[in-house]
Amino acid sequence: MKEKKIYDYIIDENMELFVLIKSADVRLAKNGKKFIAFNFSDSSGEISAKFWDASEEDIANFKPGKIILLKGKREVYQNNPQIKIYHIRLVSAEEGLKPEDFVKKAPLSKDDMEKEFNQALFEITNPSWNRVVRFLLHKYHDQFFSFPAAKKNHHAFDGGLAFHTLSMLRLAHTIAKQYADIINAPLLYAGAILHDLGKTIELSGPIATKYTLEGNLIGHIVLVDEEIVKACQQLKIDLASEDMILLRHMILAHHGLLEYGSPVRPHLLEAEVLHQIDELDASIQMLRGTLAHTEPGNFSERIFGMDGRNFYRPQEKVQSDEIIKD
Amino acid sequence: MKEKKIYDYIIDENMELFVLIKSADVRLAKNGKKFIAFNFSDSSGEISAKFWDASEEDIANFKPGKIILLKGKREVYQNNPQIKIYHIRLVSAEEGLKPEDFVKKAPLSKDDMEKEFNQALFEITNPSWNRVVRFLLHKYHDQFFSFPAAKKNHHAFDGGLAFHTLSMLRLAHTIAKQYADIINAPLLYAGAILHDLGKTIELSGPIATKYTLEGNLIGHIVLVDEEIVKACQQLKIDLASEDMILLRHMILAHHGLLEYGSPVRPHLLEAEVLHQIDELDASIQMLRGTLAHTEPGNFSERIFGMDGRNFYRPQEKVQSDEIIKD
Amino acid sequence: MKEKKIYDYIIDENMELFVLIKSADVRLAKNGKKFIAFNFSDSSGEISAKFWDASEEDIANFKPGKIILLKGKREVYQNNPQIKIYHIRLVSAEEGLKPEDFVKKAPLSKDDMEKEFNQALFEITNPSWNRVVRFLLHKYHDQFFSFPAAKKNHHAFDGGLAFHTLSMLRLAHTIAKQYADIINAPLLYAGAILHDLGKTIELSGPIATKYTLEGNLIGHIVLVDEEIVKACQQLKIDLASEDMILLRHMILAHHGLLEYGSPVRPHLLEAEVLHQIDELDASIQMLRGTLAHTEPGNFSERIFGMDGRNFYRPQEKVQSDEIIKD
Amino acid sequence: MKEKKIYDYIIDENMELFVLIKSADVRLAKNGKKFIAFNFSDSSGEISAKFWDASEEDIANFKPGKIILLKGKREVYQNNPQIKIYHIRLVSAEEGLKPEDFVKKAPLSKDDMEKEFNQALFEITNPSWNRVVRFLLHKYHDQFFSFPAAKKNHHAFDGGLAFHTLSMLRLAHTIAKQYADIINAPLLYAGAILHDLGKTIELSGPIATKYTLEGNLIGHIVLVDEEIVKACQQLKIDLASEDMILLRHMILAHHGLLEYGSPVRPHLLEAEVLHQIDELDASIQMLRGTLAHTEPGNFSERIFGMDGRNFYRPQEKVQSDEIIKD
Amino acid sequence: MKEKKIYDYIIDENMELFVLIKSADVRLAKNGKKFIAFNFSDSSGEISAKFWDASEEDIANFKPGKIILLKGKREVYQNNPQIKIYHIRLVSAEEGLKPEDFVKKAPLSKDDMEKEFNQALFEITNPSWNRVVRFLLHKYHDQFFSFPAAKKNHHAFDGGLAFHTLSMLRLAHTIAKQYADIINAPLLYAGAILHDLGKTIELSGPIATKYTLEGNLIGHIVLVDEEIVKACQQLKIDLASEDMILLRHMILAHHGLLEYGSPVRPHLLEAEVLHQIDELDASIQMLRGTLAHTEPGNFSERIFGMDGRNFYRPQEKVQSDEIIKD
Amino acid sequence: MKEKKIYDYIIDENMELFVLIKSADVRLAKNGKKFIAFNFSDSSGEISAKFWDASEEDIANFKPGKIILLKGKREVYQNNPQIKIYHIRLVSAEEGLKPEDFVKKAPLSKDDMEKEFNQALFEITNPSWNRVVRFLLHKYHDQFFSFPAAKKNHHAFDGGLAFHTLSMLRLAHTIAKQYADIINAPLLYAGAILHDLGKTIELSGPIATKYTLEGNLIGHIVLVDEEIVKACQQLKIDLASEDMILLRHMILAHHGLLEYGSPVRPHLLEAEVLHQIDELDASIQMLRGTLAHTEPGNFSERIFGMDGRNFYRPQEKVQSDEIIKD
Repeated sequence: MKEKKIYDYIIDENMELFVLIKSADVRLAKNGKKFIAFNFSDSSGEISAKFWDASEEDIANFKPGKIILLKGKREVYQNNPQIKIYHIRLVSAEEGLKPEDFVKKAPLSKDDMEKEFNQALFEITNPSWNRVVRFLLHKYHDQFFSFPAAKKNHHAFDGGLAFHTLSMLRLAHTIAKQYADIINAPLLYAGAILHDLGKTIELSGPIATKYTLEGNLIGHIVLVDEEIVKACQQLKIDLASEDMILLRHMILAHHGLLEYGSPVRPHLLEAEVLHQIDELDASIQMLRGTLAHTEPGNFSERIFGMDGRNFYRPQEKVQSDEIIKD
Repeated sequence: MKEKKIYDYIIDENMELFVLIKSADVRLAKNGKKFIAFNFSDSSGEISAKFWDASEEDIANFKPGKIILLKGKREVYQNNPQIKIYHIRLVSAEEGLKPEDFVKKAPLSKDDMEKEFNQALFEITNPSWNRVVRFLLHKYHDQFFSFPAAKKNHHAFDGGLAFHTLSMLRLAHTIAKQYADIINAPLLYAGAILHDLGKTIELSGPIATKYTLEGNLIGHIVLVDEEIVKACQQLKIDLASEDMILLRHMILAHHGLLEYGSPVRPHLLEAEVLHQIDELDASIQMLRGTLAHTEPGNFSERIFGMDGRNFYRPQEKVQSDEIIKD
Repeated sequence: MKEKKIYDYIIDENMELFVLIKSADVRLAKNGKKFIAFNFSDSSGEISAKFWDASEEDIANFKPGKIILLKGKREVYQNNPQIKIYHIRLVSAEEGLKPEDFVKKAPLSKDDMEKEFNQALFEITNPSWNRVVRFLLHKYHDQFFSFPAAKKNHHAFDGGLAFHTLSMLRLAHTIAKQYADIINAPLLYAGAILHDLGKTIELSGPIATKYTLEGNLIGHIVLVDEEIVKACQQLKIDLASEDMILLRHMILAHHGLLEYGSPVRPHLLEAEVLHQIDELDASIQMLRGTLAHTEPGNFSERIFGMDGRNFYRPQEKVQSDEIIKD
Repeated sequence: MKEKKIYDYIIDENMELFVLIKSADVRLAKNGKKFIAFNFSDSSGEISAKFWDASEEDIANFKPGKIILLKGKREVYQNNPQIKIYHIRLVSAEEGLKPEDFVKKAPLSKDDMEKEFNQALFEITNPSWNRVVRFLLHKYHDQFFSFPAAKKNHHAFDGGLAFHTLSMLRLAHTIAKQYADIINAPLLYAGAILHDLGKTIELSGPIATKYTLEGNLIGHIVLVDEEIVKACQQLKIDLASEDMILLRHMILAHHGLLEYGSPVRPHLLEAEVLHQIDELDASIQMLRGTLAHTEPGNFSERIFGMDGRNFYRPQEKVQSDEIIKD
Repeated sequence: MKEKKIYDYIIDENMELFVLIKSADVRLAKNGKKFIAFNFSDSSGEISAKFWDASEEDIANFKPGKIILLKGKREVYQNNPQIKIYHIRLVSAEEGLKPEDFVKKAPLSKDDMEKEFNQALFEITNPSWNRVVRFLLHKYHDQFFSFPAAKKNHHAFDGGLAFHTLSMLRLAHTIAKQYADIINAPLLYAGAILHDLGKTIELSGPIATKYTLEGNLIGHIVLVDEEIVKACQQLKIDLASEDMILLRHMILAHHGLLEYGSPVRPHLLEAEVLHQIDELDASIQMLRGTLAHTEPGNFSERIFGMDGRNFYRPQEKVQSDEIIKD
Repeated sequence: MKEKKIYDYIIDENMELFVLIKSADVRLAKNGKKFIAFNFSDSSGEISAKFWDASEEDIANFKPGKIILLKGKREVYQNNPQIKIYHIRLVSAEEGLKPEDFVKKAPLSKDDMEKEFNQALFEITNPSWNRVVRFLLHKYHDQFFSFPAAKKNHHAFDGGLAFHTLSMLRLAHTIAKQYADIINAPLLYAGAILHDLGKTIELSGPIATKYTLEGNLIGHIVLVDEEIVKACQQLKIDLASEDMILLRHMILAHHGLLEYGSPVRPHLLEAEVLHQIDELDASIQMLRGTLAHTEPGNFSERIFGMDGRNFYRPQEKVQSDEIIKD
């Protein structure tokens, strides 16, 4: 029985399973008592649950990062999946469970992703770009392959940063081929690999992810830029060369608009393309996550990262049978 | 000698060649005399030229659509290519020249494009979408393969509409494969093929292109929608079926934002993707056109369709040798 | 006693009367129990009420569309009228009550409105416009005279769509006379009558009104346009004639700004006027509804459809005695 | 012959007539010589003309406010009417011509307008409002009946301010009747009459109109408000009474949005209505002026006061025969 | 014990002290019972507290302006200080406590502030400005020295209006000296002293501050302008003189942007400077208030008046020892 | 005679003097001939002039950076000062004139400014900030004291960057004293000194100033940030320390809004203050430059850097005698 995951249970089914506490916000109910707003997770995804009339001891025990045995019922509330809690208890050390087994993971293994990145490095034929990319991928190797791509919204899972980067690299590859007369492929690939690497400094880590002080006061865009500066000093690459100016511009401009935090707008074809495929992959990933929990023939809840729009999941028919399984 | 095209001449070289008058605006010089602001074209592209002190006879003769023998000099003025006119004369009927040979053409032949479209039709497995797409492609066949995709900006050449549509279809194909679990490929392809078909009604034709009254007062987005309505009536397809609502939504939402003229924003994953690849292909095509006339190591002029940004064309080096030739 | 309507009771008065359940949202209280947020209505208007500690049986019984006997007290909470519920029970079939008698109605009878519309049709002297308007008014006759003009906000009552249209027609009439030298009256009248007719497809009906799938993915503006296309095909009217282009433009442009969902902005004097009188009538109707429940000498609650502004209802004095009675 | 007015001449016809110089801007041609950009007017309207190679003496002579005998030709340039000047000379004092006979006038005589205003005053039954309105109409009587309503754009003619105000008063009257249950008619009429009275201080006068220093640094909205304050002091009316607060709010809020210069947004139903009918009358008047010079079947030039939109003037047919003659 | 003030208690400490009820909002808890959301204050500041299960008698007793004896515990909830109430009771008249001793006061005494203002008056060397400023400071003397500068946000304390004005006057002084070649110091000082004086009419008073009807419908900017008009009439100063136009412009333009309620934007150097130092002083004061309650090494809550930004309070170290004590 | 400077000549006076060619744009006149649009300068300021019918030899000779002997007349055209050229010739090498003597200079000498900066350095008591500021001031010493603060708009003169920085430092000093309880003065001073230092890399130099490639593609904000990174590496200061994060935030946030190119908005009190005094000093300097050329009693031309507003220069009177001399 313990083998069933959160999203293996159907609505109104009683549940008994181990889950990780991802977040635990203590709030005041309007009757003056405290409750805990939990997010639980296992490898099938995340789900929210409220724990009413929490004692001070409960609050002290049920902290983010802990694994618990959960008894409850799978419900839906205002189109969002949630759990009604019957009982929770902390697992003991002897039960031998590890937090890292209770988070959603990228659909590809780290090894497979790493192989694909290595392949791509060969196509970055400009030696300066190649050396800087290798240097930084090596320096932040572990974080790059375990961090999420964002605190929430898109690719917010273990390995999400690497997976999002890889996904963009695949798009970059296709587009570089389709418009081969005009696109500088090595520049596009180097930019794609580095564009979000600053998130390894901006965010605190793969579990209980928060913004760091650098993240809040400097931001991941400038943080990568600074890493490139340091890499060039160590590798004795001329920072003032056109090559390095172009590469830094790729990273600085990738949010597309000043309002989105880029200190410059794209002024290179490749920087414009990088920005657009970043948006494309992020949009699809957000919708993938949301539509997986939307019933066919219904609209999803409103998605913050898509300007608050809700999306329709068409009724399933034969010709689209293969689609949206998650 | 007559074989040389406009862009075969280098700067400051004397020219003698046949060109088509694409547009001819009569304006008043600040000395009180009239001049004609020409756009000439041949298959190598367009170029502007001013004809000073134009007589009423000149104005009557040198109208858009006429072919002339041009003697002049190739110049550059404020980063834009132009011609200094020494002398122009109308060609006579006996010289046997045809306007359609003097416009830039899509890089693919109509036959090749048509074959690729036919291939794509097989992948639109939903019978309603397939029938509507075939019906409308057939109805507007000639215009679709000869109209530009826009009055100016991107794909403003003979066959530009079909070429832009094909380019998007290729992107759609790649993306549908990369995100096969979530994308309804037939819907995306049907939407891509029809999305700009209304331009065949919105615009007046491939030469001396203007907006029609319908174009100005209704717009190409609603015009395709109306065509789908009429097609369904003729083909006895239920307009109120979910399939047809989805297809119409694809077209209506493809400008992405209400501010850009879509009466609804995308509320389908495929509609969002269609909007984004439309932008991507249009951006790349605009930059391809502009950067081809920008010297390496310089910024282009500001591009209206890219929010007035100018773009940098990097200095040419070995590793990017293959790039940007136009 | 049962004759008294909701708004005949004064504040703090005990109530006992039949009402219709207009909406019933089940929510979770912060003590973990469920409650129902009701909207009740009768012919005097709507009012909200909360039903605490609702059992699963209550939730199953008290659904929108049901008539109940309500015992409670009339209250005010944060400037909004509401009811404190003492007891509710479903009426039995034998009590012979009909939902349609429990909704607010337009201040004019359908017959009176219809007569006024018929009068107006005589003034649409252009035969194409006249035929299209008659055709569509006939096709959607029943919905047009029973639907509301909007889900909430303005004219959200039985017959609201026809009443709003009639109100605009009266404004159109006056303005056409005042500016007779410049306004094409038949075009303005035809546009006024058709402008919101698409709401009969966009919305689900007069009771428990929701958006349909077409409403969400296509929108009422394009839906009328499609109806005109179909009408022209059936009536053999040339869709490409200037007359029909003008009429379609009237409908498409009537929201005034692209941001408000019009795919084109007004480019005809009559289209601009239509847009402005639509806003004028909707504003006055929204304020009429809100100020009727605002005490003299106070500001109303903030009105969503008026950019969140609150409005002041002046203290009543002799000279304004006749005003605001509702 | 001298009886023909500017707009009695047809295109390409030679002209000989007296006109007033409305404005005369001296500019530098690109050949280094000076020219004068004139606006001429007579009672049929205004028209522009360029006077090339102007000598210092010409510049000294041909000043705004002078009447000249003009010989030239009526032309059209880029959809705008203009005159090609053959010769101009100043008229002598003996010719006995007066500038005030050479400006366009409101379509109603001052006497007729004044009668209609007097009628309206009877309907302002609130004594405070009535006294303030009478006081200010009397104080600014001459300016009110001779000033334009704006420097350019709408109602920019002799008596334009009174005519625009009267036009709004007629709309106000109709609307107050149609929504008699909710609108305080005396408040709406008082607001309508005073709303633009500050323009008599903001602008310099009916001929060669400029902004005054008060106009630039304070603006007509606050200037009327100050006049109401002074009137109340003189008439011993309590400025802090609700009546006077409401009246001041009507004026202060009549531009509708803070961005348009109102220091407060409308928070009274009557203030909202006043704002909307101000826009409605101004829009119609701007379009009346522009469409009168637009050929049927064409789009007008872009109109600054209508967000830069151009408007289509439909082809004339029987049923609209009576329309747009100007 | 009664000597300890609200902010002398540390977190989790039990409290027993007299406080003033600043505001008392009655709300409905989600269990159907009423509670009171209090703001209590004494001279150390304000703090919020919730009173659960309030009876009708409680609601009638515990009104804003009353002094109570409070027993409770000092807590923190979501980074905001609050109090958990154990018991409250009204003080009796015999206890001899006065509301004015229970509000926060400006850090300078009224006498000290008044002296500094008097000093400044000597530097307003233009006689018209000097007389108007003296006249209005005298007329609104008591309100000016006791009102807050705003309902909430910045300088919301007893004497806040005078203190904010004085703070700006000090900035004005320094800036006038640093840019003495270009700034008209008397104009800047006169504008600074009068700029917010209208708040004495816009707001209801120092305790339980609300907007008056004039405040809502006219606003403090125009209200001062009206006061200047009345002062000039009484002092027989020519309102149409350049001096008085400049002074009124200073006040009218001081919000800088039309969107912020100024009917004109600054068109005088001194008006631009006045606007900028108003923003500067308000920003610093808002941050001073917020950071005083933020723990070192943490971000504050989001500040509405600073576009919703949160601010970081650095960790305390030796060199910044003197800073932020409040 | 040669001693007289550009702005020593009065309007309509004949001139003969040496000037530097600051810029020389070749344009096409509407008669088909070329002309040169010059900006000339000497130590009294800049002025524009047009050189008609320029030969190819003229174009080749009269390049930016050359000194010429100019004969002409001082004129005014549309409120802007300009020169009518009679004759120009290049000076010969023997005449011994140096370009650096022909540019406007900061009103303080470099030595005086440097002394004031050195004073300020003593007040930066935090050792890390002190060392970084000294290091970078030393590294870019010569550029810092000779570059302008902007290409045009404010402080566009020799030494303008240092002068603007010093001006801000003086404001910072005053404000740090006035709000000493809350402002970290050393942080504010360090931020003020470094905030625009990146302009020494963004711009090409003091004469014929252009944007560099780094300037265009990276921007001065990120360029200083990179310099701080490099300085820390060389000085072995921990970049991840809170001190260095705060300092970098000061620089990155100093444009205040993302739209203005800051990659983060201010989240430190000192960063907010730095942003506001940057705006204040830049505004005053722009107005100082513009008003110096505006006649009393007139409005200036519209100023691009002040949102296109024009500013009024009041009529001069006794009490403002000392003001605006430039």
